[in-house]
Amino acid sequence: MQTRLTEMLGIEHPILSAPMGVAAGGKLAAAVSAAGGLGLIGGGYGDAAWLEREFAAAGTARVGCGFITWSLAQKPQLLDLVLAQTPVAVMLSFGELAPFAPRIKAAGARLMCQVQTLALAREAVAAGADVIVAQGAEAGGHGLARATFTLVPEIADYLAGAAPDTVLVAAGGVADGRGLAAALMLGADGVLVGTRFWASSEALVAPSLQAAAVAADGDSTVRTTVPDVARRYHWPGSFTARAIRSRFVDDWHGRESVLAEPGTLEREEARYWQGFHAGDPDNTCMLAGEAVGLMHDVAPAGDIVQRMTREAQALLARAAGTRARVA
Amino acid sequence: MQTRLTEMLGIEHPILSAPMGVAAGGKLAAAVSAAGGLGLIGGGYGDAAWLEREFAAAGTARVGCGFITWSLAQKPQLLDLVLAQTPVAVMLSFGELAPFAPRIKAAGARLMCQVQTLALAREAVAAGADVIVAQGAEAGGHGLARATFTLVPEIADYLAGAAPDTVLVAAGGVADGRGLAAALMLGADGVLVGTRFWASSEALVAPSLQAAAVAADGDSTVRTTVPDVARRYHWPGSFTARAIRSRFVDDWHGRESVLAEPGTLEREEARYWQGFHAGDPDNTCMLAGEAVGLMHDVAPAGDIVQRMTREAQALLARAAGTRARVA
Ligand SMILES: Cc1cc2nc3c(=O)[nH]c(=O)nc-3n(C[C@H](O)[C@H](O)[C@H](O)COP(=O)(O)O)c2cc1C
Ligand SMILES: Cc1cc2nc3c(=O)[nH]c(=O)nc-3n(C[C@H](O)[C@H](O)[C@H](O)COP(=O)(O)O)c2cc1C
Repeated sequence: MQTRLTEMLGIEHPILSAPMGVAAGGKLAAAVSAAGGLGLIGGGYGDAAWLEREFAAAGTARVGCGFITWSLAQKPQLLDLVLAQTPVAVMLSFGELAPFAPRIKAAGARLMCQVQTLALAREAVAAGADVIVAQGAEAGGHGLARATFTLVPEIADYLAGAAPDTVLVAAGGVADGRGLAAALMLGADGVLVGTRFWASSEALVAPSLQAAAVAADGDSTVRTTVPDVARRYHWPGSFTARAIRSRFVDDWHGRESVLAEPGTLEREEARYWQGFHAGDPDNTCMLAGEAVGLMHDVAPAGDIVQRMTREAQALLARAAGTRARVA
Repeated sequence: MQTRLTEMLGIEHPILSAPMGVAAGGKLAAAVSAAGGLGLIGGGYGDAAWLEREFAAAGTARVGCGFITWSLAQKPQLLDLVLAQTPVAVMLSFGELAPFAPRIKAAGARLMCQVQTLALAREAVAAGADVIVAQGAEAGGHGLARATFTLVPEIADYLAGAAPDTVLVAAGGVADGRGLAAALMLGADGVLVGTRFWASSEALVAPSLQAAAVAADGDSTVRTTVPDVARRYHWPGSFTARAIRSRFVDDWHGRESVLAEPGTLEREEARYWQGFHAGDPDNTCMLAGEAVGLMHDVAPAGDIVQRMTREAQALLARAAGTRARVA
């Protein structure tokens, strides 16, 4: 499946795995790359030892890495650590691009910028982005409010005029070949997939949490600040995270100011991390997107790439016939 | 462009215009039907004289009609008025289906149910829906929180098991051929389009409001209760409306309890309707979706249908080639 994205990155299929903090380690990234996509290691909130270990776990695979930009700004030396690993691409999300963009490009890595609005796409172009990832609010993890379905074509139109060589990737809600085919129709050159790979065998996620996500339907996620309040992560602006409604989320969603009270916060912070490490879905938050309703198993990442590609190709081939009915 | 939707409704293109209250009159519906789609007259909050006039304005065209179901429950006789016009289809949105579904089907009209969640899709199947319209939150007008991109394939999977003869339509964010093609890839049999037709020549909308919408980008809409508070419409549950951020919206969004105070409410209610009738974008609310960022003119509805169809067909035909890059 050749697109401008596969050409730019030298890959076979236009599928990238998202740099999910903690969950997307070297093994997942390497598996996605081995299957013909490109895997991104999740730099998350930034931990040098973790990053070194996970790049080592990726072995000789060609992979990339992604950072939460406002957090990277607090530990800027992590960028050098990652660039020393000669990543294919570095993705920046959620913050000021200027302090990091030039170094990434100078190091020969592709600069990917994840954006949530048209306004942020303009900033990414100004910063020299090679790839813009248009992230809709149905996505798992942090984001804003706009939807993949309109954000992608609107940014495609903008890029066609302002930066025709910038490649466009859709993120948010893609979990199977239908999503890949739809993203291409909307004007994307490929997709970045988080939630689906979070439920892959190689993800660094407790199997019991993956099982809870596979069992959940797409109605059961919500954008919330509960995981950030509980973890004392100070996200700037109006970013929220999409998480599955667990008991923990339901206990505090809409009552965040109570959660933040002294005493309560210490107790719930401990509960969050205990639940997280124990893999107890009731007593932690699972960041995941509406796409949980589209996944029905935990599968090896390579199989996910293959299924997605095959299904998309079949849909596109059939759709071109006289009858548009494709399912 | 044949799909299961075109077969069921006896139309040429799988494109329906949304029953936008007040904006979607008989002329718009007839123009969409004349172009090969199906136009739906907007029953809105229910006004017998308006409905009679607009069915008359549709002349002999085959059209349908849509109701805000909780409002219809307050004026149930309007359903008889509409069924007497032998509509092709009647769409119910936002409320209990049981009181109306059997009469619609008994009258020989197709029962369409607009739903915002998988749970509501189950209710629609239980009520005997012929067509389910899966509406994402990027849509203009009232709705809930889920996105078109995941809601459509998830409901498609559900219908494949539970009600394989029920036809699926995608709504929310579709404004051009890319959206139509993407909706088909996601598993829909067609699309229901509101915002784009709101900016058509035949819509009952002040040209100055349409011009403001055409000038807006997709970042500039928001889900809000401001128009409902200002108009004293008591929407049940957690429905909000997507509107363009106008001065009116910005004045009150997040301050709805102040807007509702005696004195203020009377003043702002008058301001809303004065602005609405004068076509003053600063002093009213324009219900419209994120798709405002994808429309660049006010065009005849028939042209919109034709462009959408041609563009979708071209995209689907090209995508089937070796190179998936389509734009
Ligand atoms: C568990 C999880 C953790 C995530 N962590 C990050 C992160 O650390 N940095 C980042 O840029 N994006 C992160 N994301 C968002 C992804 O980059 C991507 O936008 C999203 O997963 C795409 O939507 P999808 O989940 O529907 O596939 C995360 C997503 C998930 C599900
Ligand atoms: C101005 C406007 C008024 C609307 N009024 C109604 C209505 O009265 N009843 C209804 O079922 N849906 C109504 N809708 C929602 C549409 O049925 C449809 O879901 C939506 O327009 C689709 O998304 P789009 O606007 O992105 O095309 C309205 C939408 C708009 C833009």
